[in-house]
Amino acid sequence: MHLATIPLGVRSLRAAYRDGTLTPHDVVDAVLARISERGDDAVWISRFTRDELHDQVATLNPGPLFGVPFAVKDNIDVAGLPTTAACPAFAHSPAVDATAVRLLRQAGAIVVGKTNLDQFATGLNGSRSPYGACESVFGGDLISGGSSSGSAVAVAAGEVAFSLGTDTAGSGRVPAALNGIVGLKPTRGLVSTAGVLPACRSLDCVSVFTQDLSDAADVLAVIAQPDAADPWSRPLRGDGGPDPLLRARLLLPDELDFDGDTAMESAFAAVAAGAGAVGTTPIAPLREAGDLLYSGPWVAERLAGLEGVLADHPDDVLPVIRAVVGKGVEFTAVDAFRGLHRLQELRAATDRLWGRADALLLPTVPTTFTRAQIAEQPVARNLVLGRYTQFANLLDLAAVAVPAGFTADGRPVGVTLLGPAFSEDRLISAAHQLITREAA
Amino acid sequence: MHLATIPLGVRSLRAAYRDGTLTPHDVVDAVLARISERGDDAVWISRFTRDELHDQVATLNPGPLFGVPFAVKDNIDVAGLPTTAACPAFAHSPAVDATAVRLLRQAGAIVVGKTNLDQFATGLNGSRSPYGACESVFGGDLISGGSSSGSAVAVAAGEVAFSLGTDTAGSGRVPAALNGIVGLKPTRGLVSTAGVLPACRSLDCVSVFTQDLSDAADVLAVIAQPDAADPWSRPLRGDGGPDPLLRARLLLPDELDFDGDTAMESAFAAVAAGAGAVGTTPIAPLREAGDLLYSGPWVAERLAGLEGVLADHPDDVLPVIRAVVGKGVEFTAVDAFRGLHRLQELRAATDRLWGRADALLLPTVPTTFTRAQIAEQPVARNLVLGRYTQFANLLDLAAVAVPAGFTADGRPVGVTLLGPAFSEDRLISAAHQLITREAA
Repeated sequence: MHLATIPLGVRSLRAAYRDGTLTPHDVVDAVLARISERGDDAVWISRFTRDELHDQVATLNPGPLFGVPFAVKDNIDVAGLPTTAACPAFAHSPAVDATAVRLLRQAGAIVVGKTNLDQFATGLNGSRSPYGACESVFGGDLISGGSSSGSAVAVAAGEVAFSLGTDTAGSGRVPAALNGIVGLKPTRGLVSTAGVLPACRSLDCVSVFTQDLSDAADVLAVIAQPDAADPWSRPLRGDGGPDPLLRARLLLPDELDFDGDTAMESAFAAVAAGAGAVGTTPIAPLREAGDLLYSGPWVAERLAGLEGVLADHPDDVLPVIRAVVGKGVEFTAVDAFRGLHRLQELRAATDRLWGRADALLLPTVPTTFTRAQIAEQPVARNLVLGRYTQFANLLDLAAVAVPAGFTADGRPVGVTLLGPAFSEDRLISAAHQLITREAA
Repeated sequence: MHLATIPLGVRSLRAAYRDGTLTPHDVVDAVLARISERGDDAVWISRFTRDELHDQVATLNPGPLFGVPFAVKDNIDVAGLPTTAACPAFAHSPAVDATAVRLLRQAGAIVVGKTNLDQFATGLNGSRSPYGACESVFGGDLISGGSSSGSAVAVAAGEVAFSLGTDTAGSGRVPAALNGIVGLKPTRGLVSTAGVLPACRSLDCVSVFTQDLSDAADVLAVIAQPDAADPWSRPLRGDGGPDPLLRARLLLPDELDFDGDTAMESAFAAVAAGAGAVGTTPIAPLREAGDLLYSGPWVAERLAGLEGVLADHPDDVLPVIRAVVGKGVEFTAVDAFRGLHRLQELRAATDRLWGRADALLLPTVPTTFTRAQIAEQPVARNLVLGRYTQFANLLDLAAVAVPAGFTADGRPVGVTLLGPAFSEDRLISAAHQLITREAA
């Protein structure tokens, strides 16, 4: 098989290994060839060398992800590579893998390297990094989205079979939408965050990027494990694996704001019209919850994680990050508890949705921006990108972002299914039906 | 049956009604006679009149608590009586019962009136009230404990069959210990707090005082209901009712500090020696969690609830309450999130205990104080009282406080069994075994 045509997916690789048409050494060579072919695309911060990768392959574990190459966002520890969080002055060399990386290696996967991100995972656009601003695989100066920018592009460009991102406000979904791939944001605590640099510790999730939904389910099955090293870890309470026969009951939002992007509005309307939704629900409570994150007391949770860095390396933190996170000093503990109380009310209201529906269908992003447009308004336009993602972890939801074609003017369209905690299997089944119906 | 000898317990009344030896009108007369007999004991803030009580009886629902008289702490709404929270200037007249009170009325119980408390449920000693400082039923100027002071004394003095208290830091357990009765503090969210004046909203629980464990289980069975009106309500996840055959595995603390009270230390050691414990566990993580409540950011949660009252009625709030709650302004939102992060770590460590044990056995209070001693050091001695109670809600534990005899110098001894969320049934079984063993 020629390197250029090796299909780098979890299930396709498994089939090729079973048939004996490929070896993991072939796959490592293919990965390196593709990375080299794309040149300097700002996707990677550090990688293992060719020799190190072939050494990994020589001692691969047998397992469900045997010989599957993956990338890791550079706020997640990989032993043997520095963790920078896109702040070189902050870099450190972890002695051990993050739990999720360790589980993937135990399952036979090949870790290729560390990917670019919005510094300290603070951003949704992919341009807040001293390692460069990733462009979407669709080109035209379209942002890659972030903060898991490099991880998303690496998968979309076919450089690896899957990648790990993180998702606090939408960092595992926004770049999926902008690169036409799947972004799975599991329930908080389902995947250990031990070895992940905290953004907002109570909300951070490890997320998964893949080319298709089946691959995402396979990766999640490996990394969804309780972990005593993570205080936020929760025991698995899945609903028994994806069910292809499930007839998912979908809700639509009562109103949407596409920031004037009528092409995106039409594209989403077409998906929604074909979704067979059972009803609508007010979007206002979700948006109110989301506003707590950057416009409310949770920005102080982000500051709690970064205060030491801001004190030790003030000049190495990007000014936009300093400006966003610095707002955390404006909130009192009384504000924080008032926010927690209001959030509890909004959570209880959201929980009641799941009596009448399995999932809520939303656009992943309301509109798209070019890198030039983000440079003009780096904070306001970033906030727009998170409009339909940033409430998910606050409200304890699971989410799957999937590609849904293109706007009339050729930009990628992404939609997200959101459901209650531990509904990943049902969301994957529902998303599969939605995409299939869409393509039909 | 003579009024003075009517046994006012849930199960004894049920038996008497079944046998036809009593009517609910007899019981109302007995309640009023006992209240009148005790005279001005600072237990009650308001009560229904004799006529109103007999009117209630005339329209009683049939149900598991038919004709059982109870008292309600005056931070819990009862339609027809004012809610004062022991701050007369704050008094308001609720239009509807709190959910727990409504469920009790629906089950046939008779609500007698509202009981005294430490103002705004802030205190553990029972003397912070303009309605007077309750004395323990054991006399000798011993404090009643608080904040549910009147509710505990009303049950201990045999004025009612059971009472409702609230418990944020130990208000449903400390006064049980000081009056020789049972104090059941259910899992947060198991009993609705709708209609309860918030102290620390994320931690507040409705609690139950009874003469014995069986009565507590019967009352809990009525009030443990999910409630859409309470955002903190959680669905019932019980373990199937008390199991008399359970051989509970108990843990003991590795060290205890009785504040120099050697008589209490000996009394607890005797109970512990007979408990057949399976091992010990460090107490330090529990005490660290408890310190977050009054010496850490959670005091700002208390302030969040009272800021309006402090602004509108500054002179009507007791100086000791103003001093304690006012400290909430000293904490930032960053402090609050740091506290939440540390608490999550302590919670995860505590959760691991339940793999090797069903419950932890602790003294309910490390020592006792007289009302005169509390007046000398109203804040420091109050904190001592909460040493082994105040972490329970922060760590999401259930607790049952039971009487365990007397010290050599004649003061009441109380012990508490603490277990994971939703372990009430197991704790009640374990406490029953412990008391039986103790008495044998």
